[in-house]
Amino acid sequence: MSRPVDAVLALAAEFLGERLTTNAALREQHSHGEDALPHALPDAVAFVASTEEASKLLALCNAHGVPVVPFGAGTSLEGHVTPVRGGITIDLSRMTDIIEVNAADMDCRIQPGVTRQGLNAHLRDQGLFFPVDPGSVCTIGGMCATRASGTAAVRYGTIRENVLGLTVVLADGRVIKTGGRVRKSSTGYDLTRLFIGSEGTLGIITEITLRLHGIPEAISAAVCQFDSMAGAVETVIAVMQAGIPVARIELIDEVQMGASITYSKLVGLAPVPTLFLEFHGTPQGVAEQAGLAEAISGDFGGQGFRWATDPAERTHLWQARHDAYWAGLALKPGHRGMTTDAVVPISRLAEAILGVKEDIAASGLTAPMVGHVGDGNFHTIILVSDEPGAVERAFELDRKIVARALALGGSCSGEHGVGIGKREFLEQEHGPEALAVMRSLKTAMDPKAIMNPGKLFLN
Amino acid sequence: MSRPVDAVLALAAEFLGERLTTNAALREQHSHGEDALPHALPDAVAFVASTEEASKLLALCNAHGVPVVPFGAGTSLEGHVTPVRGGITIDLSRMTDIIEVNAADMDCRIQPGVTRQGLNAHLRDQGLFFPVDPGSVCTIGGMCATRASGTAAVRYGTIRENVLGLTVVLADGRVIKTGGRVRKSSTGYDLTRLFIGSEGTLGIITEITLRLHGIPEAISAAVCQFDSMAGAVETVIAVMQAGIPVARIELIDEVQMGASITYSKLVGLAPVPTLFLEFHGTPQGVAEQAGLAEAISGDFGGQGFRWATDPAERTHLWQARHDAYWAGLALKPGHRGMTTDAVVPISRLAEAILGVKEDIAASGLTAPMVGHVGDGNFHTIILVSDEPGAVERAFELDRKIVARALALGGSCSGEHGVGIGKREFLEQEHGPEALAVMRSLKTAMDPKAIMNPGKLFLN
Repeated sequence: MSRPVDAVLALAAEFLGERLTTNAALREQHSHGEDALPHALPDAVAFVASTEEASKLLALCNAHGVPVVPFGAGTSLEGHVTPVRGGITIDLSRMTDIIEVNAADMDCRIQPGVTRQGLNAHLRDQGLFFPVDPGSVCTIGGMCATRASGTAAVRYGTIRENVLGLTVVLADGRVIKTGGRVRKSSTGYDLTRLFIGSEGTLGIITEITLRLHGIPEAISAAVCQFDSMAGAVETVIAVMQAGIPVARIELIDEVQMGASITYSKLVGLAPVPTLFLEFHGTPQGVAEQAGLAEAISGDFGGQGFRWATDPAERTHLWQARHDAYWAGLALKPGHRGMTTDAVVPISRLAEAILGVKEDIAASGLTAPMVGHVGDGNFHTIILVSDEPGAVERAFELDRKIVARALALGGSCSGEHGVGIGKREFLEQEHGPEALAVMRSLKTAMDPKAIMNPGKLFLN
Repeated sequence: MSRPVDAVLALAAEFLGERLTTNAALREQHSHGEDALPHALPDAVAFVASTEEASKLLALCNAHGVPVVPFGAGTSLEGHVTPVRGGITIDLSRMTDIIEVNAADMDCRIQPGVTRQGLNAHLRDQGLFFPVDPGSVCTIGGMCATRASGTAAVRYGTIRENVLGLTVVLADGRVIKTGGRVRKSSTGYDLTRLFIGSEGTLGIITEITLRLHGIPEAISAAVCQFDSMAGAVETVIAVMQAGIPVARIELIDEVQMGASITYSKLVGLAPVPTLFLEFHGTPQGVAEQAGLAEAISGDFGGQGFRWATDPAERTHLWQARHDAYWAGLALKPGHRGMTTDAVVPISRLAEAILGVKEDIAASGLTAPMVGHVGDGNFHTIILVSDEPGAVERAFELDRKIVARALALGGSCSGEHGVGIGKREFLEQEHGPEALAVMRSLKTAMDPKAIMNPGKLFLN
């Protein structure tokens, strides 16, 4: 029993007690996210309850060279939480305190295990909300680590634009605070943004100061259907260029619409390319925005533009959008989903999407498509069977989709991150020199390379 | 003649020719910004014309350990461009190409010497504009380096939110591209944000991809006067909380209003605390926003809320705001201005401003005040005479203002940066551990410490 991890476990048990565990079921539960990548077990799982505990644990792991993997809700789609080199998984999902809400400043300070849903339930009676909405039930700490966004980023920005400051435990256990509560500051390097999207490779986020927004006086949803994918995409581009402040503008292709009509019992909609829109503002402003969007959609062949301020109808529509993943899976019972995440400049969106649909057809696979198209970001959910070679065929299609996005000046991931699954594309996307700079920052911050090893960088 | 800089000058002259100069007048012109700090001469000034030239020059300077100071329009208010350790000033103001404008994607790629005014003149007939407006005629490269913002940040964000990607020459001459043209991406460390606000200490920005916005269909300006500073500030807080998407909301105190009424010939306005507002949107939306803001201002004692869509009246009002600095200086002919830049959470703004006004009164100095109050950021322009000790007294007042801001959870600089003048506050604001992380990043990126030495960090 001379493994370095054993020394750490013995010492950490003194302050973590039963919250440090080598229980087989808990290790298995922490061996993977929601991806199709191989699983790997941590040596132990630590459910930390405070910044101080995380700090003490990291200092020990660093001293003994033991790998550390931060874990939130485990909803990663790119293998971020898989402990490929063992070590200790630090589970932050029990750190769910909403420490303070400052209504006058429209900000709050939370622990990293708080979910968007939990935070918004807490904020509702103060007239405030947190708008970054990746759809899944994930932790806000995880959203910070992967630079998440989702359906409302087109209006409210990604997590990057909605974090004011962080508390971070560094690899050696030092604790720093980045940013603060002010809306802007020009003092020193932007450490907050350095940790946003660092995927647990530079430190562990243990507190987050978030920017909040006022719940809009009026919200309306709209849906519009098109004969062609091109018409739907051209509508999106024109809506964005007109400066209509849409809160959400989502594209659902004909395959996904077919799936969602069945799964979510959507009435009066056809399995054709469709836009779901949402407008936030005053009653008058919302009506005006929807009217402008309707006029634009008509120019590009949009039919049956339908909008409603009725909360029940709106909820049903967006629930269908959020359930798209499950609706897609239901097309092929017994299959798993592998989600792609390409993003391109919006002017290249039609070309990218039509090209990807050709790739899907050529692959013989089923892959419904949804997209945060106001940002140029679209997902395909590749349905993967249990047959030998099926995962490889899905990855093959994913690579083709990434290649198309990069060729059009895009990125391999709009919001899911690099993790394990997208490492091979990082150099192509950023160039060897920029990648070398990223590696030099990693080395400066984590010289013993204990922080989430095997992620972001190919070694 | 064995100075390291001489070796660099001899080699650099081969590719820069007459654009590398030791002319005394040009060195003097590059010895300072628009601050009240001591001047220092560079050994030479290089007017580079391309990324390649900057790369070759930096490789030489790094090899010979010669300091490098990037220079744009020289409008820094914190000594950023003063070559305190000599070396070569790299002047980028002649790199003024607008390389491409992508109207469909609402983005553009420019060289760093382009000004906001130049870019907006170029964009106007495409219906697009670049919204970050610090007021002065500065280069966009300099705005990136200092994380600038200005009057429209409350609606459109600071430069940080409006840069999609950069080309940067590193200390050793390597060239990297950061970010790209996509609206969002989750692939790798956010190098773009690392350089935004790095004040020339990590690399030289030689190309910038900017996010653009559609020129609003309607713009209206409004002005509203108050009996008390508290009423004006409470109005700002309530307007922000109501979610009214004001494009600008500026506070001018009674001293500055007195100065501006005289200097800018403002008719029908009294020397009392005043808000200048601007609304962007559809004609209907703008009228609605202004109506809501008027109703709120009435709740807090605002009188004579006056709004107009007439471009001439609007231009006159905002010209007066932009000329506030000169109007303030005219109060005391022969004096210089020293500008403070505190920022606090908006809920603490009334307390901060009223406290600062007490500090000004106690100092016996004249210091009109203006503020980007939607962001919690306010400036005083301390008028400094030529008398012995006058600069020290002004710095004394500045320190008191910073201390108040920090005690209220604020920052010593909202938009002017650290440079030389604010270095002493950096550790207090961020803590010793975060400052140590910043230093470790600096060392990783610029091991020979040639990039703008003596700025950001006290050594």
